[in-house]
Amino acid sequence: MGGKMRVAVLGYGNIGKHAVDAVEFSPDMELAGIVELPERLQGPVPEVTGRKALAASIGELQRVDVALLCIPSRSVPGVAPPILARGIHTVDSYDIHGQLADLRRSLDQAARGGDAVAVTGAGWDPGTDSIVRCMFEFMAPRGITYTDFGPGMSMGHSVAARAVAGVADALAITIPAGAGIHRRMVYVRLRPGSDFEDVAGRIKQDPYFAHDETIVRQVEDVTALLDVGHGVSMERKGVSGVTHNQRLHFSMKINNPALTAQIMVASARAASRQKPGAYTLIEIPVIDFMFGEREAIIRERV
Amino acid sequence: MGGKMRVAVLGYGNIGKHAVDAVEFSPDMELAGIVELPERLQGPVPEVTGRKALAASIGELQRVDVALLCIPSRSVPGVAPPILARGIHTVDSYDIHGQLADLRRSLDQAARGGDAVAVTGAGWDPGTDSIVRCMFEFMAPRGITYTDFGPGMSMGHSVAARAVAGVADALAITIPAGAGIHRRMVYVRLRPGSDFEDVAGRIKQDPYFAHDETIVRQVEDVTALLDVGHGVSMERKGVSGVTHNQRLHFSMKINNPALTAQIMVASARAASRQKPGAYTLIEIPVIDFMFGEREAIIRERV
Repeated sequence: MGGKMRVAVLGYGNIGKHAVDAVEFSPDMELAGIVELPERLQGPVPEVTGRKALAASIGELQRVDVALLCIPSRSVPGVAPPILARGIHTVDSYDIHGQLADLRRSLDQAARGGDAVAVTGAGWDPGTDSIVRCMFEFMAPRGITYTDFGPGMSMGHSVAARAVAGVADALAITIPAGAGIHRRMVYVRLRPGSDFEDVAGRIKQDPYFAHDETIVRQVEDVTALLDVGHGVSMERKGVSGVTHNQRLHFSMKINNPALTAQIMVASARAASRQKPGAYTLIEIPVIDFMFGEREAIIRERV
Repeated sequence: MGGKMRVAVLGYGNIGKHAVDAVEFSPDMELAGIVELPERLQGPVPEVTGRKALAASIGELQRVDVALLCIPSRSVPGVAPPILARGIHTVDSYDIHGQLADLRRSLDQAARGGDAVAVTGAGWDPGTDSIVRCMFEFMAPRGITYTDFGPGMSMGHSVAARAVAGVADALAITIPAGAGIHRRMVYVRLRPGSDFEDVAGRIKQDPYFAHDETIVRQVEDVTALLDVGHGVSMERKGVSGVTHNQRLHFSMKINNPALTAQIMVASARAASRQKPGAYTLIEIPVIDFMFGEREAIIRERV
């Protein structure tokens, strides 16, 4: 690689802000600009507007190598293809597990068409957790891996709870109950005149909550509970050859958007090292995500 | 892939025996044979000699796709190249960290010459731990990763202790003391007439032990202490972007030779999916180690 990789950050929300930080701390990258509609900007863009281009579309930015799509998952299938068609790599942290394989197929076509690379599902689950899940499985091919999330905020469940009639604001926390089972704690601020028992009943019947133990609590102010800390614990008890009781464990306690953004930035680096097409994280060698000279990494990290 | 991958196991010691088990449990593989000198065989080869070829050299086996080198690390640099020259992939679990990068370079040349693939350092450290170390680093690029081994038997240290004057037999156990520091517990059976304090002093001065806290104990029978259980704990506290205190943890408690053999078998599969050359585990996508159809793995595991 000659000069620094030029990275555009699309969407300046929670993840986008952390992505800008991570790009600035990557010695091999520079920020090409932030793409966000002015009316969407929440608060000022401190220290960024002065020296960085804030644009309303990626076409306004000069020479972009990779675009980090820090946008809602459901927007990714529409936003990525035209960027790939311009020959710009894309990285997204699409997190709808059941639809990721299909997204990968459609991005693959768009990426090949534009002679570009799309890295999809580049977060922690799907993402780095997927790497661990696969590794655990080839280390002990028979057995069960349990993935236990939390405690931490679930964006999807919070959005679902907010859409329930009578809810003014809501926050859903995922509590690990072990063996891949989770409890949902839902904190709601009610709309004036609505009845708590009715609202709680409707939340528990919502498809997002119907299959898990769900506990609803009424609060005055949901924002006072906001904390982006999250975690996961993955455990496999399995068999290597004919040898049972192999115990493998991975866990982390992290700032969720900061980690997601950092993984997206590492994936931007990996994108520049793949052939045109779309990739999930398990399809890319881990060395390709790392900053530094290949031989030195092998010498010092292996 | 048309038929099953034919795998030869070279060396029928601890790891070789587990490798045969792991090959037999892999739906996409079959055992081409076991290569071991008759005089080296310890005990019978139960249930194997009847139906499998036991050969004194790999040339005697029919159609071998991959050879698993279940031999001492120091023998790998000599044994692998002629096998690669025949167009047979090799997998080794070479574990001398400081020399692995050089071995990879020389195997790379041999592999390209034979239009074959060598996967080197295919154990758990170097190996799967290396994948985790790299992953931790790209998730939180600034910070420290500590790798704490044990408790478990160290082959290298046991061999070093056995070579000390006055020692009839020895076993060295690695005890994790935290933050990458280890204590060595060395159990020795003395030769008649040798003095325990002298022997203990010589062991502690040996380069293998001089830098670690080392405790030597005299026992009547070292074999009564043998247990191939081992473990590791890897911990990183680091920074994603500008966000500190990201906590990542990986640990396992495992049968050491069974896990090593299973990783070698998974690496045999990965070898058949790479272009000619030599690879450490961090240079191969994790999906390539897995049995099964690619699209299904992405759909179900990511």
